[in-house]
Amino acid sequence: MLAVMKRIFIASRGNPEHLASLFRAQLPDHDVLVEQPDPQGPAVPYIVVGRPLPGVIAAVPGLELVLSLNAGVEHLLASGEVPDHLPIVRLVDEGLAEGMAEWVMAHVLGWHRNLRHYEAIQPAAQWQPKPEKLARERIVTVLGSGALGAPVVQHLLAFGFKTRVWSRSGRPVAGAESFAGRERLIEAVSGADILINLLPLTTETADILDASVFSAMAPGSFLINGARGGHVVDADLIAALDQGQLSGAALDVFRTEPLPPESPFWSDRRILVSPHVAAPTHLDMAVAEMAGNIRRFERTEPIPHLVDRQRGY
Amino acid sequence: MLAVMKRIFIASRGNPEHLASLFRAQLPDHDVLVEQPDPQGPAVPYIVVGRPLPGVIAAVPGLELVLSLNAGVEHLLASGEVPDHLPIVRLVDEGLAEGMAEWVMAHVLGWHRNLRHYEAIQPAAQWQPKPEKLARERIVTVLGSGALGAPVVQHLLAFGFKTRVWSRSGRPVAGAESFAGRERLIEAVSGADILINLLPLTTETADILDASVFSAMAPGSFLINGARGGHVVDADLIAALDQGQLSGAALDVFRTEPLPPESPFWSDRRILVSPHVAAPTHLDMAVAEMAGNIRRFERTEPIPHLVDRQRGY
Repeated sequence: MLAVMKRIFIASRGNPEHLASLFRAQLPDHDVLVEQPDPQGPAVPYIVVGRPLPGVIAAVPGLELVLSLNAGVEHLLASGEVPDHLPIVRLVDEGLAEGMAEWVMAHVLGWHRNLRHYEAIQPAAQWQPKPEKLARERIVTVLGSGALGAPVVQHLLAFGFKTRVWSRSGRPVAGAESFAGRERLIEAVSGADILINLLPLTTETADILDASVFSAMAPGSFLINGARGGHVVDADLIAALDQGQLSGAALDVFRTEPLPPESPFWSDRRILVSPHVAAPTHLDMAVAEMAGNIRRFERTEPIPHLVDRQRGY
Repeated sequence: MLAVMKRIFIASRGNPEHLASLFRAQLPDHDVLVEQPDPQGPAVPYIVVGRPLPGVIAAVPGLELVLSLNAGVEHLLASGEVPDHLPIVRLVDEGLAEGMAEWVMAHVLGWHRNLRHYEAIQPAAQWQPKPEKLARERIVTVLGSGALGAPVVQHLLAFGFKTRVWSRSGRPVAGAESFAGRERLIEAVSGADILINLLPLTTETADILDASVFSAMAPGSFLINGARGGHVVDADLIAALDQGQLSGAALDVFRTEPLPPESPFWSDRRILVSPHVAAPTHLDMAVAEMAGNIRRFERTEPIPHLVDRQRGY
């Protein structure tokens, strides 16, 4: 006798069939749908969704758990599409933290060791060594001490950078100097040569990278934003670059994505633009993570990265 | 009653006075000279030297130990200026290995995460993400498992790269796949996405980076040379780039340094030229290391990085 298989609705807007096939491989004892289920039909306890179309979530019968296709859930929360009683799980797969750490450290080390400087002067065919500092002579501040921030801190420490980490809660990361709460933000970034933003975007962190932060950093310092465009006050960033307070910025995220062709960032050689590729989702790892969370839910085990709506992430 | 202070001769061609002042601070119980000592005068057991001028070393009375100002001693050995009975210590200070690891990993991660690609397309103002691999999907081979190679291997492993290490002796590095001896070189580089050269330059390793190595690597792969220009067969490198077998190379060292203005490397956008800055000597750490070696010598303790003339480093 067959038990009734629990149903999963893949509401992803891009390539739901491919996602569904990966889910079927991971959870052969589940029924994976890609079409909106009948609101009067049998229960569908799970939905997999990125940015939901209006009404899609509310129409799913017997929904019990929302699995976000993104690590950042600010759009999902702001949409108002998720009924208050439903738990939401953020997508934090192994590849996400690894990819982010690679991208961040590529920019940290590239700026630290003047790679763009040497690339810029190369056509002049002149042998001009410039004094090089060691990592141990640089201060780096990481905003965010969670799934993304903590691995970056480990890499920074391994290279010998003087590493600080700031977060709302002040969760410590071994080996780094930890700072908690908005009132210690300026202290945390004071004199920093490199500032790395890996915060979630919430009402508390929106616009957090502003003139007060940039002016506290070391003159000629460098900003790396791998989190969200909404963290940065763009006009303050441009002003800090114009003043030489910042020497450059690596930005992977923007207030409007894709970054519009008319954005001044594209033609600004002090800014390194990348098209939201710092930590792309690796579907196989993402599905393995989400399937694992469904198993945990069914065994009533704790699920990591459950969203706290009060906190906003 | 004063004991006779042991004498140290700083035979560096560049800024010997500054070096001498650092030595005096580290070894106040020694007499530090910057002028060629009288061959008939009191013994001078220590000389600190980079590339020696002819006859300088031989004229020092009572010499017992030669402290090289470089990690690579191929010039010192080839000069024939060091009498056979004198021990030579290579300079391997903390900053050397740290600086090299920073520079190497900046290029590893920059190439791996397509930073130059995004920089090149940025002026077109087009949002064009390209598929990104994770470190765990790349094979990286390190040539050299010693003071420079081992720390690089640790960083590669921390990012998750599939890491191989090749050396003459095959000294293993935990976590990496190890290969020993010339007969396993091609196997070690086979299919590698990135090849990192950190070997000493000896008769056995000269010209080691040739067409046979490049053609064994993965198509479109990347070379990073932080060791010596004499390791690379330049014509084979250019041919491998022309064929697309290599997509690029980061070169910090060259057969002739400074790299002459007429070198084709300067204008080749596939090659990243830097002026021998990967691991600059940090004088304070270097002098601390050399002073420590003098102390060890006087206490007849083992001295690390003593040159084996047979081996060539």
